[in-house]
Amino acid sequence: MSHNLLKGKKGIIFGALDHQSIAWKTAESVHAQGGQVVLTNAPVAMRMGTINELGEKINAPVIPADATSLTDLENLIDQAMKHFGGKLDFVLHSIGMSVNVRKGKHYTALNHDWMTKGWDVSAVSFHKLMQTLYGKDAMNEWGSIVALTYIAAQRTFPNYNDMADNKAYLESIARSFGYYMGKDKKVRVNTISQSPTLTTAGQGVKGLDGFLTYASKTSPLGNATAKECADYTVMMFSDFTKKVTMQNLFHDGGFSTTGVSQEVIDSLQ
Amino acid sequence: MSHNLLKGKKGIIFGALDHQSIAWKTAESVHAQGGQVVLTNAPVAMRMGTINELGEKINAPVIPADATSLTDLENLIDQAMKHFGGKLDFVLHSIGMSVNVRKGKHYTALNHDWMTKGWDVSAVSFHKLMQTLYGKDAMNEWGSIVALTYIAAQRTFPNYNDMADNKAYLESIARSFGYYMGKDKKVRVNTISQSPTLTTAGQGVKGLDGFLTYASKTSPLGNATAKECADYTVMMFSDFTKKVTMQNLFHDGGFSTTGVSQEVIDSLQ
Amino acid sequence: MSHNLLKGKKGIIFGALDHQSIAWKTAESVHAQGGQVVLTNAPVAMRMGTINELGEKINAPVIPADATSLTDLENLIDQAMKHFGGKLDFVLHSIGMSVNVRKGKHYTALNHDWMTKGWDVSAVSFHKLMQTLYGKDAMNEWGSIVALTYIAAQRTFPNYNDMADNKAYLESIARSFGYYMGKDKKVRVNTISQSPTLTTAGQGVKGLDGFLTYASKTSPLGNATAKECADYTVMMFSDFTKKVTMQNLFHDGGFSTTGVSQEVIDSLQ
Amino acid sequence: MSHNLLKGKKGIIFGALDHQSIAWKTAESVHAQGGQVVLTNAPVAMRMGTINELGEKINAPVIPADATSLTDLENLIDQAMKHFGGKLDFVLHSIGMSVNVRKGKHYTALNHDWMTKGWDVSAVSFHKLMQTLYGKDAMNEWGSIVALTYIAAQRTFPNYNDMADNKAYLESIARSFGYYMGKDKKVRVNTISQSPTLTTAGQGVKGLDGFLTYASKTSPLGNATAKECADYTVMMFSDFTKKVTMQNLFHDGGFSTTGVSQEVIDSLQ
Repeated sequence: MSHNLLKGKKGIIFGALDHQSIAWKTAESVHAQGGQVVLTNAPVAMRMGTINELGEKINAPVIPADATSLTDLENLIDQAMKHFGGKLDFVLHSIGMSVNVRKGKHYTALNHDWMTKGWDVSAVSFHKLMQTLYGKDAMNEWGSIVALTYIAAQRTFPNYNDMADNKAYLESIARSFGYYMGKDKKVRVNTISQSPTLTTAGQGVKGLDGFLTYASKTSPLGNATAKECADYTVMMFSDFTKKVTMQNLFHDGGFSTTGVSQEVIDSLQ
Repeated sequence: MSHNLLKGKKGIIFGALDHQSIAWKTAESVHAQGGQVVLTNAPVAMRMGTINELGEKINAPVIPADATSLTDLENLIDQAMKHFGGKLDFVLHSIGMSVNVRKGKHYTALNHDWMTKGWDVSAVSFHKLMQTLYGKDAMNEWGSIVALTYIAAQRTFPNYNDMADNKAYLESIARSFGYYMGKDKKVRVNTISQSPTLTTAGQGVKGLDGFLTYASKTSPLGNATAKECADYTVMMFSDFTKKVTMQNLFHDGGFSTTGVSQEVIDSLQ
Repeated sequence: MSHNLLKGKKGIIFGALDHQSIAWKTAESVHAQGGQVVLTNAPVAMRMGTINELGEKINAPVIPADATSLTDLENLIDQAMKHFGGKLDFVLHSIGMSVNVRKGKHYTALNHDWMTKGWDVSAVSFHKLMQTLYGKDAMNEWGSIVALTYIAAQRTFPNYNDMADNKAYLESIARSFGYYMGKDKKVRVNTISQSPTLTTAGQGVKGLDGFLTYASKTSPLGNATAKECADYTVMMFSDFTKKVTMQNLFHDGGFSTTGVSQEVIDSLQ
Repeated sequence: MSHNLLKGKKGIIFGALDHQSIAWKTAESVHAQGGQVVLTNAPVAMRMGTINELGEKINAPVIPADATSLTDLENLIDQAMKHFGGKLDFVLHSIGMSVNVRKGKHYTALNHDWMTKGWDVSAVSFHKLMQTLYGKDAMNEWGSIVALTYIAAQRTFPNYNDMADNKAYLESIARSFGYYMGKDKKVRVNTISQSPTLTTAGQGVKGLDGFLTYASKTSPLGNATAKECADYTVMMFSDFTKKVTMQNLFHDGGFSTTGVSQEVIDSLQ
């Protein structure tokens, strides 16, 4: 469904690893709606995935950047603005990683160096990104910045581990920086809290299968897919949502406001 | 900006009084995006306003209905489906009224018959509407139902009076009925919590001027206008938001997550 | 454990039906902590239950009152103040009833007269009560008013039906009236959102057993009992909580902030 | 008002700098209610303040500990358990510090090393503390752990800077660890979100005066004092709140649920 919703709009998308990634599908959806994209990911993630394939497909340059490095972020934004010949209209932050999850450390026995690393990658990178955009005055007025998050920031889910705390920090950054992005730049900043999604990254979360079943049985409309999340993100980049800012937006088929479904109760009998 | 976002979609819009109304502007935006509309309002509101003018402008039938009457709602939906030759894709509920506010009764000395009347018009009408849509199986799959609300449902604002409680009830209906609309009909139900807006209805709220100033000084992006709310509603009717349901969506320039702005603090010195 | 926490404090407790009632246990706990109580319930509830037995046990007068009647509420408060020889320090509102639940009407096919009746009894009664207390200036400074509620006001639970919406309205009244009770009378108003509890009233909710199991498996500390709720309410009446107002306080063993427990996921396999 | 509420209970209080500190007043209130305390603070904070004076006054050992050091925390807990001859019943975490705030760095131009330092001290210390308590099985069943926080975790306040994000992380830790503390140890974990308070630490926040005025004009019951916060914390340590866990509890005179007060609106005219 191409409606040219993003015609003339330009932006950067972080975090497309492979075709399962929400960021990958968002780049495709943005492209389908007439937007122009610069892709980026960490060098190590680029080697593991297939981002160059996507770059060719949607005619988007791929610029490596470690999102925890201010130097890399500055270079990325400089190059993107040079490529576009102007400022940016949208940015998607789809980055998250917990060393403790990967290495199977329980939340009650974390390695705090690993906790720091995961926090830096998953949450602080969002502050560094916005600080760089703000300092370079790199966003057009009425631009839109989105980061992906998860409801573990509000409620505890087993095995989500320190990613829950990272997401809470990420959502707080969206509000804190959103205030200044709004006042000073007329730019909106929001987080989208997506259903659990079976991406390559998501596969690292232990017990995800059981949880996907639970979420699907709970959500009245079923779990939201990666493609649906891409479409919702496009909407948040469009001019139809100009005054929505500093919000955490649940995109989850109704999971967040369903206490329990009858199916789940019945399964416990 | 016409993107044909709602091409082929058909629905009912409640509550267009005059050209200041959010419902009026939504009808215009829906029409501009290729959607087809049936307009409705209470007979008394139709006499006070200019809805027929809008009907002619966007080629929409105007069918009077008292939204507190199940009989009127049944007739409205029957006629709308007959007019469209099929089921509905979207419905906007933009109805609210407090007799206590109009007659200047303080919240600590309410007339409870008037409270009941305002609750029936402002909140129960939303349940009656959905019960009628559900019973007649009148919504297409992946249809979208929206009601307009206000942040007084979460926090207390002087002079908003019993409308605060009505809005809390309305938002609860959106969740409660949204569960069944989702499970049984694949239809989403949400409320949009809009900035204070200077509509003809809003003018009835005492002290609105002072409050509009406060809200504007607080919101990093400024207050959202009626036209912007119309655009956001269009997006909630479009296929870009299929998995968002049972949510209360703040459309307020960041008001809801701003504790206080520096301007407001400075004004108190 | 008697700590004389409420020594010298006087108040009214609504809704003690029988020894399973939270209100019954609260009256006992208040009495054990040195507080003096006036008991009240609707005449019909008094006939069904054993409130007089409680009155004798804790030396509390029992004054019948239909909480939907301003006349009855005025009489009750006048008599209570006469009995105590002064103003009140605390009030507990533990009243809730849905005719639609009792008669098995589904949420998608409600009888709206019954809906109105349940709303009046379960929610509006709280406004009428506070309006009467306010008008008679019946509360001492730093007094405390509590109403019992349930998390269905925030999220949808099957079978809770229109009680969910009534609880949302009740919680909104607590905020709206709490503002004026605070500003004008230095009185706090809060709601306690209690675990599902197997009281005689709760037994009317279809499917409660399955739900109790689910809640118990979800809450890290298990469901809160009626006695524990009574203790928590005593704390909210004491001088240790003077500045807590207009809050909805979850007393639920952690249910509200647990997304899902491992036990529940395992049960679905 | 001594009610022996904490008779026989033993615990550790972090963060008493001087007599203005909330932790100082909590230690006094705990002592007044029959509880036994071990005091601790960072060595540098001990030199700046007068904690030894408090220790003598309430007969509490003072054990220095850097709360970011697992070694120091282990030593502290070992020594406290040795002193008490058994496990702990309560712990108060009242620790917060932002280098960026102290050095006047704006939120849009932070030093990220300082951000990391503040996060480690203000938030991660809470995880390290609970990890140590959990690992040593140092808490008695039905024990209570409290950390102090601020509403900037939910909404943006100018000048609160990166402390807002630290508090969001802290509150998330309370939920995440609260799940395991509840399931495995029957211990509750909560945060108290306190009114802005003019402590020696609070004085470092730029523009606090203007903000205190605003908060006071907004809160229907006025700002909560340090002493009132101490009393509320005592109640959260007592047996009257056994089933409250994983909650963020606003202790703020109604600030959090007041949209705006009439006084503030009037001041803007």
